[in-house]
Amino acid sequence: MCRWVAYAGPPIFLSDLVTDPEHSLIAQSLGAEEAKVEVNGDGFGIGWYGERTEPGLYREILPAWSDDNLRHLARQVRSRLFFAHVRAATGTATSRANCHPFANGRWLFMHNGQIGGYAGLRRTIEAMIGDAHYGARAGTKDSEALFLIAHSRGLDRDPVGAVASTLRDVVAAMRVARVEAPLRVTAALSDGQRLFAFRYASDRRPPSLYWRRDGGAIQVVSEPLDRRREAWNAVPDGHALVCCGAGGCDVVPLAVEAVEAA
Amino acid sequence: MCRWVAYAGPPIFLSDLVTDPEHSLIAQSLGAEEAKVEVNGDGFGIGWYGERTEPGLYREILPAWSDDNLRHLARQVRSRLFFAHVRAATGTATSRANCHPFANGRWLFMHNGQIGGYAGLRRTIEAMIGDAHYGARAGTKDSEALFLIAHSRGLDRDPVGAVASTLRDVVAAMRVARVEAPLRVTAALSDGQRLFAFRYASDRRPPSLYWRRDGGAIQVVSEPLDRRREAWNAVPDGHALVCCGAGGCDVVPLAVEAVEAA
Amino acid sequence: MCRWVAYAGPPIFLSDLVTDPEHSLIAQSLGAEEAKVEVNGDGFGIGWYGERTEPGLYREILPAWSDDNLRHLARQVRSRLFFAHVRAATGTATSRANCHPFANGRWLFMHNGQIGGYAGLRRTIEAMIGDAHYGARAGTKDSEALFLIAHSRGLDRDPVGAVASTLRDVVAAMRVARVEAPLRVTAALSDGQRLFAFRYASDRRPPSLYWRRDGGAIQVVSEPLDRRREAWNAVPDGHALVCCGAGGCDVVPLAVEAVEAA
Amino acid sequence: MCRWVAYAGPPIFLSDLVTDPEHSLIAQSLGAEEAKVEVNGDGFGIGWYGERTEPGLYREILPAWSDDNLRHLARQVRSRLFFAHVRAATGTATSRANCHPFANGRWLFMHNGQIGGYAGLRRTIEAMIGDAHYGARAGTKDSEALFLIAHSRGLDRDPVGAVASTLRDVVAAMRVARVEAPLRVTAALSDGQRLFAFRYASDRRPPSLYWRRDGGAIQVVSEPLDRRREAWNAVPDGHALVCCGAGGCDVVPLAVEAVEAA
Repeated sequence: MCRWVAYAGPPIFLSDLVTDPEHSLIAQSLGAEEAKVEVNGDGFGIGWYGERTEPGLYREILPAWSDDNLRHLARQVRSRLFFAHVRAATGTATSRANCHPFANGRWLFMHNGQIGGYAGLRRTIEAMIGDAHYGARAGTKDSEALFLIAHSRGLDRDPVGAVASTLRDVVAAMRVARVEAPLRVTAALSDGQRLFAFRYASDRRPPSLYWRRDGGAIQVVSEPLDRRREAWNAVPDGHALVCCGAGGCDVVPLAVEAVEAA
Repeated sequence: MCRWVAYAGPPIFLSDLVTDPEHSLIAQSLGAEEAKVEVNGDGFGIGWYGERTEPGLYREILPAWSDDNLRHLARQVRSRLFFAHVRAATGTATSRANCHPFANGRWLFMHNGQIGGYAGLRRTIEAMIGDAHYGARAGTKDSEALFLIAHSRGLDRDPVGAVASTLRDVVAAMRVARVEAPLRVTAALSDGQRLFAFRYASDRRPPSLYWRRDGGAIQVVSEPLDRRREAWNAVPDGHALVCCGAGGCDVVPLAVEAVEAA
Repeated sequence: MCRWVAYAGPPIFLSDLVTDPEHSLIAQSLGAEEAKVEVNGDGFGIGWYGERTEPGLYREILPAWSDDNLRHLARQVRSRLFFAHVRAATGTATSRANCHPFANGRWLFMHNGQIGGYAGLRRTIEAMIGDAHYGARAGTKDSEALFLIAHSRGLDRDPVGAVASTLRDVVAAMRVARVEAPLRVTAALSDGQRLFAFRYASDRRPPSLYWRRDGGAIQVVSEPLDRRREAWNAVPDGHALVCCGAGGCDVVPLAVEAVEAA
Repeated sequence: MCRWVAYAGPPIFLSDLVTDPEHSLIAQSLGAEEAKVEVNGDGFGIGWYGERTEPGLYREILPAWSDDNLRHLARQVRSRLFFAHVRAATGTATSRANCHPFANGRWLFMHNGQIGGYAGLRRTIEAMIGDAHYGARAGTKDSEALFLIAHSRGLDRDPVGAVASTLRDVVAAMRVARVEAPLRVTAALSDGQRLFAFRYASDRRPPSLYWRRDGGAIQVVSEPLDRRREAWNAVPDGHALVCCGAGGCDVVPLAVEAVEAA
């Protein structure tokens, strides 16, 4: 279980969310309050959109709280759309390739959660990645696989549909393999213009996910960045938050269960 | 504040203390119970005596809990005298040179605690390191400085006296500079034959330190490795534990306060 | 292209081959003489057999020449059978999981060379790894894939046959995909008792590989460790060197081409 | 011996100098042509001025050629004044704190060269750092010491004079200690507005240093970034290059020898 923040709005320094708030992402890396584990010290990453179509990426296997480079970048980089993520993967080796966010072309993706029974299903899950995107597989984890499968499900045309289709097929594969552990997902996705966030759990117990409007800006977070909980809205289980620049945000249902039940 | 273990006795695998016990050093790195901070994720190190006079050293800036190399070494290296240390230095950059243990010639040293007001006293403290040992200064922290000062105070002839003399002079320097924060030390020291452990606090509130005999072996630890607390003896504040191979261990007073009061 | 050394014989310190000789592996990491690139600074690793059935492993993404931990381990670890490897992968990110040697159960493997057209063939190659071993896939490179395929081809029963079968199938897959770049392999393999070395190139231009007997010991190296070239024997292209403890070594043909031509 | 580039002018992406030119800094990290060693793989760093008074910093102990984060940052960060540095320190451990550039307040500094006999002189050299700046000493090397001494010699008021005074005192200390190895320096310095570059050797054999005007921009480099050598001017030994925004650049003598000879 990990913790993350996503931002879209007028350009701000990354430090405004990553290091400065009372319960900033860095604070959460040492003391998360709504996650299964308190410590998120197994690598971290930031991804941001600047002047180019494709995002920038800085990922490192150290804990976020002790990385001077992160502190410097967060103070210097100002962005209108960025992701930041701290990772908990206690007990397994850490590599940059398995740190979030993941970038592919103009897309950026990060995830918190798990595919139940992934170790046994890995091959099946990886087979869902189309040939055109398999070359981009740089790590070995379930999160990157979800991202690349979504690419192969039409991410460019219909992002919400592609993610729903991905989750649907993963749930189906888990069912075939009689996996009892759940699929639990919160995820953020962007093409540099729109910001998407997803919350879904096959056992109706999804990881925490909140969002709020703040002036013209949108913040989506695993945990509120301050103690004013009433200012934050939970993203409902089985739904996506879709934010399109000045057009504001909509909460839409994710067609995972519907089709699944059919 | 950090956590550490030291061992002397019949050769055992490092994993017997570092990874395997119920409340092993690795377990303490994620959930210390008697330290100011729970997480010790800012680097770690092991030092051990094998076939050579000088000890081996493996130090890394990653958290101990996610380092596969440590897991491998702990399972493969068997030693009759070894140290292991996990570090908490939240908020400052981590480098191997600042990780414990420190080695110099045949000596090995590790430390948990602090020199109150070290930032302002650093220059004064470093000036206590004799010219002959200043070249060995590879990092910037107080712990390594204590080790090198002890070298310059006759470590080879009288290890307990050299450490007491070091602490005395540091306390004196703190007093001159009107530092109110305390000096707090637990430390382990070895020349490859004898094992020394120290516990001292200028405010009588030293970090926790325990030891026990187990067959022909001695274990000294920041926190008991299991829940059988009655099996562990606290090292008294202001004292050193001196273990000389088959000769057993003595607890002797550290002449810090005595001279200080004179 | 990488450089490596393998040793079997009376226990010696790893430093005897890794750091001390005139043209030691560390020297080769900065100035290889028989490889396409001179610098092998993209990670390194050592694997050794000690008191346990499975080997120890230390792998790191830094250049071998600047790693203090390696220097310490090479001076402290004494082994009767060990591998050491320095890696050149200029231009791609380095992770420990992609560093050699690779360990799986009691087996150890390292490789120098390339599967021509691997980027396009990766999926096909990975499909050759049997389900029982796919879970052990921790990286993304061709070398680890070769090792795991060999596991699925009966490595435990017939190591030379399993490697030959692996190479045969890879060559066949390259042919189907009309890859023109060659398969080039030198590799070392051990189960903790026997030492195997392989040299093969589909274009008859294999990487360099030498071996020698030195008292009761066997050394296999990418490049001679000293200037006495006449003391070293080349392993012939398309052959395996098979060393069985006191039983000495045999050079046997690798049944890649034979079957291939059939 | 290291290699570096400095830029001042209209904002450009760091990749324009660091990764893209024919003989870019990354190319130099693997194949320097005018340095004592060809490989500069012992860490690297970039420092740049953006929207804040103090510079940003990204330093890493990996070789520059294999660091994906560097590639990303160089493509995303656009700056009107930046430094980049690749380091050669073969044989000694690498830490971020010893990587260039160094930042202190609004100042940025990087260096190539050596203080002859530094190991024996380190204490004397460090004593030249004023108390006000000793706390900023994060590493152990001569380069950072030069920067902090210059701070204590009036860097804020007279940068060229402060550096000259620093070099003068270092040469004097070397003379007192009868060090025969030379002081050799090329260095870049900035306060975020002006760009200074220095070239000096006590044995008149300074490391290479070139500069050129390109439109409204200034580039200062250890080695030309392309094969058009005639387009690059050598900075003369014993001189400083002083560039003040639109005001252009002057080459002025460094008062090291003059005073020294008095």
